[in-house]
Amino acid sequence: MAAHDAKEHPPVRFETHPDRYVHWKLDFPAAHGAPQGQVARLAMDVKEDRGMRPGYPLKLNSYDLGVDIELADALQRIRFEHPEVRAVLVTSGKDRIFCSGANIYMLGSSTHAFKVNFCKFTNETRLYLEDMSQASGIHSLAALNGTASGGGYELAIACDEIVLADDGSSAVSLPEAPLLGVLPGTGGLTRLVDKRKIRRDLADVFSTVAEGVRGKRALEWNLVDEAPPRAKFQETVKRRLDALVAKSSRKSHAPVKLGPLEAKRSDKGAEYKYVSLVLDRAARKATLTIRAPKEPQPKTPADLAKIGADAWCIRAWRELDDALLDLRFNEPLIGVVALRTEGDAEAVLAVDRFLSENEDDGLVREVALLIKRVLKRLDMTAKSLFSLAQPGSCFAGSLLELALASDRVYMKDEDGVSLWVSPMNAGPYPMGNGLTRLESRFLADPSKASRVLETQGAIGTLAAQKLGLVTFAPDDIDWDDEIRIAFEERASYSPDAMTGMEASLRYGGPETMETKIFGRLTAWQNWIFQRPNAVGEKGALTLYGKPERPEFDFRRT
Amino acid sequence: MAAHDAKEHPPVRFETHPDRYVHWKLDFPAAHGAPQGQVARLAMDVKEDRGMRPGYPLKLNSYDLGVDIELADALQRIRFEHPEVRAVLVTSGKDRIFCSGANIYMLGSSTHAFKVNFCKFTNETRLYLEDMSQASGIHSLAALNGTASGGGYELAIACDEIVLADDGSSAVSLPEAPLLGVLPGTGGLTRLVDKRKIRRDLADVFSTVAEGVRGKRALEWNLVDEAPPRAKFQETVKRRLDALVAKSSRKSHAPVKLGPLEAKRSDKGAEYKYVSLVLDRAARKATLTIRAPKEPQPKTPADLAKIGADAWCIRAWRELDDALLDLRFNEPLIGVVALRTEGDAEAVLAVDRFLSENEDDGLVREVALLIKRVLKRLDMTAKSLFSLAQPGSCFAGSLLELALASDRVYMKDEDGVSLWVSPMNAGPYPMGNGLTRLESRFLADPSKASRVLETQGAIGTLAAQKLGLVTFAPDDIDWDDEIRIAFEERASYSPDAMTGMEASLRYGGPETMETKIFGRLTAWQNWIFQRPNAVGEKGALTLYGKPERPEFDFRRT
Repeated sequence: MAAHDAKEHPPVRFETHPDRYVHWKLDFPAAHGAPQGQVARLAMDVKEDRGMRPGYPLKLNSYDLGVDIELADALQRIRFEHPEVRAVLVTSGKDRIFCSGANIYMLGSSTHAFKVNFCKFTNETRLYLEDMSQASGIHSLAALNGTASGGGYELAIACDEIVLADDGSSAVSLPEAPLLGVLPGTGGLTRLVDKRKIRRDLADVFSTVAEGVRGKRALEWNLVDEAPPRAKFQETVKRRLDALVAKSSRKSHAPVKLGPLEAKRSDKGAEYKYVSLVLDRAARKATLTIRAPKEPQPKTPADLAKIGADAWCIRAWRELDDALLDLRFNEPLIGVVALRTEGDAEAVLAVDRFLSENEDDGLVREVALLIKRVLKRLDMTAKSLFSLAQPGSCFAGSLLELALASDRVYMKDEDGVSLWVSPMNAGPYPMGNGLTRLESRFLADPSKASRVLETQGAIGTLAAQKLGLVTFAPDDIDWDDEIRIAFEERASYSPDAMTGMEASLRYGGPETMETKIFGRLTAWQNWIFQRPNAVGEKGALTLYGKPERPEFDFRRT
Repeated sequence: MAAHDAKEHPPVRFETHPDRYVHWKLDFPAAHGAPQGQVARLAMDVKEDRGMRPGYPLKLNSYDLGVDIELADALQRIRFEHPEVRAVLVTSGKDRIFCSGANIYMLGSSTHAFKVNFCKFTNETRLYLEDMSQASGIHSLAALNGTASGGGYELAIACDEIVLADDGSSAVSLPEAPLLGVLPGTGGLTRLVDKRKIRRDLADVFSTVAEGVRGKRALEWNLVDEAPPRAKFQETVKRRLDALVAKSSRKSHAPVKLGPLEAKRSDKGAEYKYVSLVLDRAARKATLTIRAPKEPQPKTPADLAKIGADAWCIRAWRELDDALLDLRFNEPLIGVVALRTEGDAEAVLAVDRFLSENEDDGLVREVALLIKRVLKRLDMTAKSLFSLAQPGSCFAGSLLELALASDRVYMKDEDGVSLWVSPMNAGPYPMGNGLTRLESRFLADPSKASRVLETQGAIGTLAAQKLGLVTFAPDDIDWDDEIRIAFEERASYSPDAMTGMEASLRYGGPETMETKIFGRLTAWQNWIFQRPNAVGEKGALTLYGKPERPEFDFRRT
């Protein structure tokens, strides 16, 4: 089976649990002034010999995908399982080193596609850290009790605040360009100038000084927010955490345990409770079906708290998230994804009404934020997305977003095939560019978005076409052929051209720090990740840690 | 000498003149309703056998760099030499074909660096076409008397309006992705969704239908502005040109002939009247010196019209533009450029006062727009830029922009070394992101930009440091060593990492259609231009026009 990126490796799985964390410790110390539980401490203590794949020891708190999967899991659990948390302390469980970034030997031994997907996932996790702060009022502090280099510093600048011990040795640095011939591409360069707004010439110096910047200068350049001597380090961290807790606007809610998804996986795909992933590797096509709930769904926030993670509004989206990551990492040959929905649109709309009417509830808000993040993951997935609206499908409200996230929407021209809008299409799920998917769709005429939102009830095929929601609407006679040809054609094109094209067409309109990370920075990094100066036999990434010096082709492009 | 990109090719030169155009015809027909001279007609009629380099016939009005150099020259001359022009008609001198885009065999036989630089130059020229419309009121119309495909359609969408003959065969198309496995990367994809704001799913379909879209559908999708039958084509073009002329806000002024620059070139660089380019290829370093005027400069717009293109405010910047293009295309091994200025700051400030006080004059406005474009070309040049302020230098006003465009500013800590601001730093030269270079520098605190603008007279080294204008200020004892080490170090790094890093750090803050073209779209295209699916032995670009079908590695990245 040639489906996996690196045949010798088992597929990557993204579910984990704090009980099984290898590299992170999540606890809720009382020590930090605030009542116990208000601060979640995430301490990175990477086990050298427990890398996700063999062949690279994870020295000096360097990370691989396995480390980052635990971090992503922890952030999700803090949101749902620990509603009392108002601030997150990100620190290191090791002495004198915070984190030395992505493991270079791991990068050097990974395929291009794995590197790109790894960076994308890591970027997403860091954006989730920022989203926790902005959207949920759970602020974060990076306590650098030792050097933070490369991805280690990139993790730190994804936090709201950074405290660096001024001890004559601890430094922050982005040594990727001078040492490895690649970029601090997991958000680093963009956050330097766009988030911390560091002067471009200082950012230039900082990004080319391999040994980094320490103490006072790091503070002067705004690379950190405070640089106390070691003796005052804990006290400073405590003071800042107290302040972050105090300013938190987090809404309390009942804790919701995120249970295992228990997907049934086979060579043909994965079957979840509400999501099916069916692979047709020969055709390079996958079909992803999301089903509406059949069971009664919560009508009040209290109901939701009781039903918990089995509620459709949590479970279906966690399943979709897992399936998307499965597709990205384990199914590189899949080029086109058919997005389907199945079931009772009214059931989906009822969920949306519940979410919309209770948007001020802390737990409901977290659910909407979860859906927002999963939809962004869909936008960012480098597969062609074709939505198929057919008899029995239910692209309604939150599920209509799947169609709006698609590169094309095929809607069968037949009675009873419909789309439905809900208040959830009007704002709660912005794309990375800050616009709703309807706004992004109708950049030329924003009133068209309003017109869609004003519709009541089922929108038939003809009406959906008039509203601009549909790309093609074949009738029963043409449907099968037209769909088959569309998928065959799409799957026949250069996958690189499709990735680059979709990255351009999906993000019309404004750019934000978030889209710049994926658009500008990632695209440049992807380019560099192909270049002999990085990954050739004599490239800097290849030769890192070896006695030989890299040899560069110095022609500038 | 290994300096040139492709040793077998002579260096590329960018100066030309309508008398020597091979591929374009520039005239000023009376036929188009408006008084003769108000419409400039640019008719593309590419000579198959006159490609810039041997080996590819330029069939079907396809273009290479030589074709685009003529277009860039024509646009510049319309601005300066033809002040009566109020609209530009871009059309084809061939029957039934407008333009089939960049020549594929040329692309297939070019080095990666040449492809990238070629696309960048072509992008810049198209942005100049848009700048003519927005800033000078010279509007443009693409009259597609036949099919416009790929770069041909990209040229059309750089115009304000597009008229396509609806004749059953003429189409607009972007066949790059489906046919060649690359992107419509010379602005195409970005302009589709950002300029013409075409719905993303329709843009997706359009960009994957190799045969393109004709007549009514092209109009419905907003790919063109009007699609008359062939019998009404000329009449429609005339009507629209009349309207463009009527709405033009162009300010008339005396014509200014752009004479030849007459650079003295040697293996060591080029000597212009106000600009010196000195190459140290062994050190991968170039020194670019811009000298202040010594001769009396115009004091009134009438003076300027009389002195014409020999005035410093035109000549020095045309020379710098030429030197930058020389560096980009002919000196790929140069990695770092030292930017120096020399002469009397007061002379530069006097020019700036003249430009600022007469900003409403048509010719003065064109001069400021020229300087704006050259500075943008500098921002976009993929070489590290270090400005050196020393005794005798004159980084004043317009020349201070060179320092502000630099990745670093070194200023000698010595009495008499100064910087100076002028009103020209406050707005007339925005970067592609829409901000001034001062605003881009002080994203964290816009008041710092105001503080700089409020300074009067010479700003000494200490003051310049305090204002945030200087990266490093070594004194006389350290200067030589520090500068030497800085240049050596910079030149030793992976040139790819530097290009990607600078592309990120130079463009903090907002993105615009312009920066998206260079940042998002170009970066993706550069990536694709490296991929075996495009340029490998079995890649689509390599095999174009051959009987073999490309073979793709279908793993999605």
